[in-house]
Amino acid sequence: MAYRKTPAEISRLEAARERLIGCATEVVADVGWSQASVNAVADAAGIAAGSVYQHFPSKAALAVEVFRRAAGREVEVLGEVLGGAGDPVERLSRGVDVFARRALENRGLAYALLAAPAEPAVGAERLDFRRRYRALFAEVVREGVAAGQLPPQNAEITAAALTGAIGEVLVDPLAAADENATQQLLADLTAAALRCAGAPTA
Amino acid sequence: MAYRKTPAEISRLEAARERLIGCATEVVADVGWSQASVNAVADAAGIAAGSVYQHFPSKAALAVEVFRRAAGREVEVLGEVLGGAGDPVERLSRGVDVFARRALENRGLAYALLAAPAEPAVGAERLDFRRRYRALFAEVVREGVAAGQLPPQNAEITAAALTGAIGEVLVDPLAAADENATQQLLADLTAAALRCAGAPTA
Repeated sequence: MAYRKTPAEISRLEAARERLIGCATEVVADVGWSQASVNAVADAAGIAAGSVYQHFPSKAALAVEVFRRAAGREVEVLGEVLGGAGDPVERLSRGVDVFARRALENRGLAYALLAAPAEPAVGAERLDFRRRYRALFAEVVREGVAAGQLPPQNAEITAAALTGAIGEVLVDPLAAADENATQQLLADLTAAALRCAGAPTA
Repeated sequence: MAYRKTPAEISRLEAARERLIGCATEVVADVGWSQASVNAVADAAGIAAGSVYQHFPSKAALAVEVFRRAAGREVEVLGEVLGGAGDPVERLSRGVDVFARRALENRGLAYALLAAPAEPAVGAERLDFRRRYRALFAEVVREGVAAGQLPPQNAEITAAALTGAIGEVLVDPLAAADENATQQLLADLTAAALRCAGAPTA
């Protein structure tokens, strides 16, 4: 008869896996993908490198999980803001602002998620998540057009443009870590995004 | 006395290297970075894999060279259009159109340059080239603002937004290879880009 894990063992393993993902996320935020070796993550978690492999078959698999968790949180927050209270243009404006603000508050991790050179498996995740951001933006742009707040346009194209624009605008500020310029950057980025969607400018 | 290559040997080596880069570029365009192994490139060039290593120490070094050459051509073409004839808004519009059109005419290579998951060394080149695109767009936006054709704005932010927007809008069309939608895509993309820079809309 095959050995089966007891409920207590399973929940201990799951807790260890969660803790490992948390540690790995911090390491990635601190030193980037390339330096976030299995050894570095194991050190941060206070376990042996071999124990990491009990949970993840490779560095790439761990990196993908770190990416999915962190990017998934951002998709969730953006979705809540874009689908929340207010008219479509207000929600779009707030969505861009909240996304950028969260990125600038956690620069290391945001840079890793948005731009930092990473292994191909992470690159594939990035393409996937950008599609999810696009779907969220497309919905609010369609609502804005339907409400007559935005001019007629291809909402999918605008949504892709917004997703690409926001990511690219943040690349250098995230890498440079200049805290002073944050307010102006958020204002300029939101303005560019609203113009891109054809919202009336102030 | 150290052996020195004769001028004829040097020029033969350079020609072989150029030919190899050309073959590798075709392989990348056909099958993407992940499948463009040293063996696949050597096969395409009709040489032994060992001969590839006479010119490039690694697959990554060859990939970086392929990227630089191909992306360098696009930067050059974009620079000529953006710095060419016409007023700033005309040049911006034409630049977006020409860039996207060239990408859609060579979808495999454009997808590899813009979006396809690649090794980190290629990812680093991508960040570098996007900075060059941004510098070109920033210049024409500044000219448009100075000429009173575009509203006052942070030209660097708009340039980053344009660079990100164009790349992201092209990702799916490049992967899907739907030739029919090209004209509409170009029109929608150019419209979004012009809106982003605050150009008066038709």
